Amino acid sequence: MADALAQLKERLTRITDLERVSRVLNWDQQTMMPPAGWQHRSDHMATLRRISHELLIAEETGRLLDELRSVEDSLDPDSDDAALIRVARRDHEKASHVPTELRAEMTRAAAEARTIWVKARSESDFEQLRPALERNYELRNEYVALFPDVDERYDILLDDYEPETTTAEVTETFAEVKAELLPLIAELRDIEVDDSFMRGTFPPEAQERLAKEVVTLFGFRPDTWRLDPTEHPFASGAGVDDIRITTHYDPETMKSFISMMHEYGHGLYGHQLPRNLERLPIGGPCSLGIHESQSRMWENLVGRSQPFWQFFYPRAQEAFPDQLRGVELDRFLTGINRVKPSLIRVKADEVTYGMHVILRFELEQDLINGRVAVRDLPTVWNERMHEYLGIDVPNDAQGVLQDTHWASGHIGYFSTYLLGTVMSVQIWEKILEDIPDLEEQIERGEFKALRDWLGEHIHSLGRKYTPQETLRRATGSTIDPKPYLAYLRNKYAAGVAA
Amino acid sequence: MADALAQLKERLTRITDLERVSRVLNWDQQTMMPPAGWQHRSDHMATLRRISHELLIAEETGRLLDELRSVEDSLDPDSDDAALIRVARRDHEKASHVPTELRAEMTRAAAEARTIWVKARSESDFEQLRPALERNYELRNEYVALFPDVDERYDILLDDYEPETTTAEVTETFAEVKAELLPLIAELRDIEVDDSFMRGTFPPEAQERLAKEVVTLFGFRPDTWRLDPTEHPFASGAGVDDIRITTHYDPETMKSFISMMHEYGHGLYGHQLPRNLERLPIGGPCSLGIHESQSRMWENLVGRSQPFWQFFYPRAQEAFPDQLRGVELDRFLTGINRVKPSLIRVKADEVTYGMHVILRFELEQDLINGRVAVRDLPTVWNERMHEYLGIDVPNDAQGVLQDTHWASGHIGYFSTYLLGTVMSVQIWEKILEDIPDLEEQIERGEFKALRDWLGEHIHSLGRKYTPQETLRRATGSTIDPKPYLAYLRNKYAAGVAA
Repeated sequence: MADALAQLKERLTRITDLERVSRVLNWDQQTMMPPAGWQHRSDHMATLRRISHELLIAEETGRLLDELRSVEDSLDPDSDDAALIRVARRDHEKASHVPTELRAEMTRAAAEARTIWVKARSESDFEQLRPALERNYELRNEYVALFPDVDERYDILLDDYEPETTTAEVTETFAEVKAELLPLIAELRDIEVDDSFMRGTFPPEAQERLAKEVVTLFGFRPDTWRLDPTEHPFASGAGVDDIRITTHYDPETMKSFISMMHEYGHGLYGHQLPRNLERLPIGGPCSLGIHESQSRMWENLVGRSQPFWQFFYPRAQEAFPDQLRGVELDRFLTGINRVKPSLIRVKADEVTYGMHVILRFELEQDLINGRVAVRDLPTVWNERMHEYLGIDVPNDAQGVLQDTHWASGHIGYFSTYLLGTVMSVQIWEKILEDIPDLEEQIERGEFKALRDWLGEHIHSLGRKYTPQETLRRATGSTIDPKPYLAYLRNKYAAGVAA
Repeated sequence: MADALAQLKERLTRITDLERVSRVLNWDQQTMMPPAGWQHRSDHMATLRRISHELLIAEETGRLLDELRSVEDSLDPDSDDAALIRVARRDHEKASHVPTELRAEMTRAAAEARTIWVKARSESDFEQLRPALERNYELRNEYVALFPDVDERYDILLDDYEPETTTAEVTETFAEVKAELLPLIAELRDIEVDDSFMRGTFPPEAQERLAKEVVTLFGFRPDTWRLDPTEHPFASGAGVDDIRITTHYDPETMKSFISMMHEYGHGLYGHQLPRNLERLPIGGPCSLGIHESQSRMWENLVGRSQPFWQFFYPRAQEAFPDQLRGVELDRFLTGINRVKPSLIRVKADEVTYGMHVILRFELEQDLINGRVAVRDLPTVWNERMHEYLGIDVPNDAQGVLQDTHWASGHIGYFSTYLLGTVMSVQIWEKILEDIPDLEEQIERGEFKALRDWLGEHIHSLGRKYTPQETLRRATGSTIDPKPYLAYLRNKYAAGVAA
């Protein structure tokens, strides 16, 4: 039996290594690869996926899992080995529905479509992307059809990003959020806030220096982390000692600063995953929702907060003297927290952000259930942006082409941004209970206690538990939007951020 | 039968893809990876190697090759399919001697030792590297012992880099070279040449601009190539449309310029490999000797030549006005071609270079045959540098630690530098026959005809033939050091380069 476990671990180590290698290739594709290399990259990504999928669905994997059933029952369910067998069985069973050819083609087509998306977005030309996007959706439809016995077809896709979470559960959470956000947006959208200082001249070199300063303060270390420029920021890496975050320096705004703190949150999660389980599936991140709870926490609860800027604002003023010299801290905070419906999700304020996500979550379901066709996406997108946020979309680059996800084959992913945002406030409140002087620490530029808390209560659990069980262990409760909504109402009680 | 061929190709495509992926990871390790990421990288490289080795030695691969024996016999031996089956059979048979565990461990230990080498070299501390280097040699000894029926143990290692080439053949070629080089060095070493302008201040930014200018002139295109700084220059890439060369900008010399042309030669070979065979083993480079014939050609026959500098020297003067303003072209050419024994192989002149290689070639054989122990390497190295080049080695960083090869597990590799150098002159003479005005073209900064000739006669053959057969097809002759030795004697007939 011990032998079966060792054999299973050996197989899972290979699968995990291949997945980590793919992450490095994906990082490379978005930061370093010569553009014409996309064809090689698509082929190579598909081959890696083909091999790892075959290893996962192999009869031998199933046989080992069967043999280990009694071992699993005899172990403490919280032990690493029990969790490993449990998670591996779930991965094996889901993957076993899927032929290797389809899995490899999904990967290849997505890598290809991603390349086309870069050009289509830069030229704001949806038609360029349309055939590749139709192909991605066609393949997802084939994929979903392999699981006939589900309540909701979309559950299959959602579960790839947020395991053991159903469309119905997310819909219920989002309904509660939406019911509060829409009136809150209506209330706040016309309040005049002077944020003119946020547009102007922000030299990229100064932005880069400041970005490095803040992530170093948070806990970025050059022997284990990298920070690179890219078009569409993301976090990646090969393991706990190889963390790579990216950002985009727009010379006319300092918004990259906020998105960089977001990516730091992802990076820290990767950096504090359980080192001893690193090459096994349970050593990875729990879910994208939990991942986003980390990135959104550093972005919003640290990065848009009074205590952080109390400490850091003088440094920002020094970096951008022409822009910020005459701007008091209070005006700065009110400005960076201005609520105003806008076109781009990643640049949205905390209040309107949720509606960007809900729009995509609903639209993905319409697409996968055939209620909306890919060719009609720009029209439907623009209609809903008008309906939810009351704004007109001038072109597809700032509309349906803004995000890489659908082109990159990440269909079912978007809701995790809002799930993570909701959970981030639940987690934050628990941290404030456990570290009562956290805000004072942040005012002094100290982040170690925060990092350690996150490491102990969330990161070190890896993927041993479901997202909701992970959240329950960290906070005592499963997902609940009330703290998040109360936080927003409280923050904007005076009409502007206090 | 067609089915067996298709199945074989599918397996070989996976193997080739995994090898290409490893190349990207290797590039990343040497240019981008956070230093602490080495442990992940060693594990991931070993896993990729483990999987590709298992695919190669699998019984199923052997069965397909057996089934295809009659197909191979019925095909034109020059056809791609016949060559594919031939090369795959050879790879399969050699690899089948080697247990997967050993192959993976060789890869893992080498990736680890490479990391240690970086630090050991920077601190000039051989003892730091010694255990890891002993491990590499120990593993190579285990590897060699798997092939009991060979004339020379070293043949097995050499064949990994220069297929179907024996130690005896290389020894014979090198004996002829050595017999000429030693007196030529003795004759030239004390001739006074003023190359003082080559040391001073060469701002890295200006070096980088000039490097990009020259490779662009040669045929580097930013959509398919990259050029990055690294400690120890090399060329790599993921395929014909993803070529990555590297260089090291020493602020006190412009020697990076020459090494960058060397790497360009490697890159061009990779860029002009047969696109339609890209994902099969016969679509790769023929051997490292043929690879070096390309890099050494661009480095020496183009890069140290009068016609090239006739065109390019004004640009170099513009880039480094303080260093080169008062230096005439003739003095510049004599200076950059000065023959003077020196410590570092990659910075050696064309005449002494060969002795650096011969020293390593002999020493590798002594190590693998137990005549020299790894712990005695620094002493023996220093003795032989004195014997062959008459110079004293001040420290290990400039001695036995200067090259990454042994640490990186490339044991059996070094002779290919001199084999390639010898072949480069044979190839060059054939090109001059076919393109009589080549030197005039180079004086005008035109390189297209040269690139096209190399593409047609060498690069497009990929790995269909052995290195010697490839050379014979390109030039009409197998390896022969006479043209190389005549070239050197002629170049230095006046005691200094004319």
